Amino acid sequence: MHRTKVRIVEGALDANDTIAMANRDDFDDHDVSVINLMSAPGAGKTSLLERAVDLPGVRLGVLEGDVQGSLDADRLSVLGIPVTQLNTAPSFGGECHLDANMVRSALPGLPLHDIDLLIVENVGNLVCPAEFRIGEDVRAMVCSVCEGEDKPLKYPLMFRACELVVINKADLLPHLAFDLEMLLRNIDSVNPGVRCIVTSARTGEGIEEWREWLTEVAGRVHAEVAH
Amino acid sequence: MHRTKVRIVEGALDANDTIAMANRDDFDDHDVSVINLMSAPGAGKTSLLERAVDLPGVRLGVLEGDVQGSLDADRLSVLGIPVTQLNTAPSFGGECHLDANMVRSALPGLPLHDIDLLIVENVGNLVCPAEFRIGEDVRAMVCSVCEGEDKPLKYPLMFRACELVVINKADLLPHLAFDLEMLLRNIDSVNPGVRCIVTSARTGEGIEEWREWLTEVAGRVHAEVAH
Repeated sequence: MHRTKVRIVEGALDANDTIAMANRDDFDDHDVSVINLMSAPGAGKTSLLERAVDLPGVRLGVLEGDVQGSLDADRLSVLGIPVTQLNTAPSFGGECHLDANMVRSALPGLPLHDIDLLIVENVGNLVCPAEFRIGEDVRAMVCSVCEGEDKPLKYPLMFRACELVVINKADLLPHLAFDLEMLLRNIDSVNPGVRCIVTSARTGEGIEEWREWLTEVAGRVHAEVAH
Repeated sequence: MHRTKVRIVEGALDANDTIAMANRDDFDDHDVSVINLMSAPGAGKTSLLERAVDLPGVRLGVLEGDVQGSLDADRLSVLGIPVTQLNTAPSFGGECHLDANMVRSALPGLPLHDIDLLIVENVGNLVCPAEFRIGEDVRAMVCSVCEGEDKPLKYPLMFRACELVVINKADLLPHLAFDLEMLLRNIDSVNPGVRCIVTSARTGEGIEEWREWLTEVAGRVHAEVAH
């Protein structure tokens, strides 16, 4: 039974990758860079995006993934950027992650011709979102210092899948029994050399570096097109 | 394609419930009360359990669910209670939740005859763990004040599935822009009247009430047997 299950899962992942490539083609046609942004619930993805809606020379768009509701999309759309809500319940059965097909279903609602950098805010979850490509250029994650130093060891696939780990809520460090060096060591043990940025969306710590990274990613597609 | 998918998921849930009932029978045979304890990653489930290993008159056991590693099990086993580790990767393909079959596979390793109250610490995830019964008497969840007030609205199934919501890390409230009353209102809007306990595993706030609740659940099975 286990072998059958593995085969079904592999088949589903193959189908997902095929659709992810179709998404990728659409993004390429519009010179859009895409970031798949992941985290546990409440790590601060939306707050970090609120800090980045006005990147000079970069037209941002957001695809907001949630099981239910549009709270994060509402927070971002008032800031004047195009935001499309994608709910995984009920239409997708309450899925705990976005997959390529869900993202594909949302593409017609996105003004890709007006977007340089599309950030897909995935469902808050440290497991399954890392297993499904959606046609992104880059995967990045946010972890909060409130979650403990052990998370890279407990959810290694997520930390391994990303090219950037944002360590958020640094303003709370003085109030926590938290060892930032241990977290950095644990991250490095599962994804050696991965870039980490320590931020506080509240105080602004690290936000300039976060914005610079986003701007750099936005420029990658155009650099490729120019060559 | 969507309809087929729904049918497969329903079939899987039916099969899960059948196995959950078999687990339930085994727990009943040994007069064991079982709590399915859920949360987002890093909300503090293990820290709350560390505060409850010495409940008077209650022999505690823990089934520790993690994608990978045994960090939480190691923390608890040094405190002298029986702890069994259940990893969802690789044997179960890196699942984001426990299901009845995984729990069933772990039962032979649990000394059920020496346990009054079994706490199953589920994988950190606010979506799928709420969809799979494992043969528990009670579902409970921990949410941390660091996660924001909006989580009940974004993950309503989880908050609705539980008979207790523990609101942990209350010691951080003075340092957060967090509205506890709004969280309580949001919880009540998705699960009217559900019991909430505000705790800090660090300072001990609310821990007595948490211990009393666990003791009360442990006594339920015995009360049923006595009648």
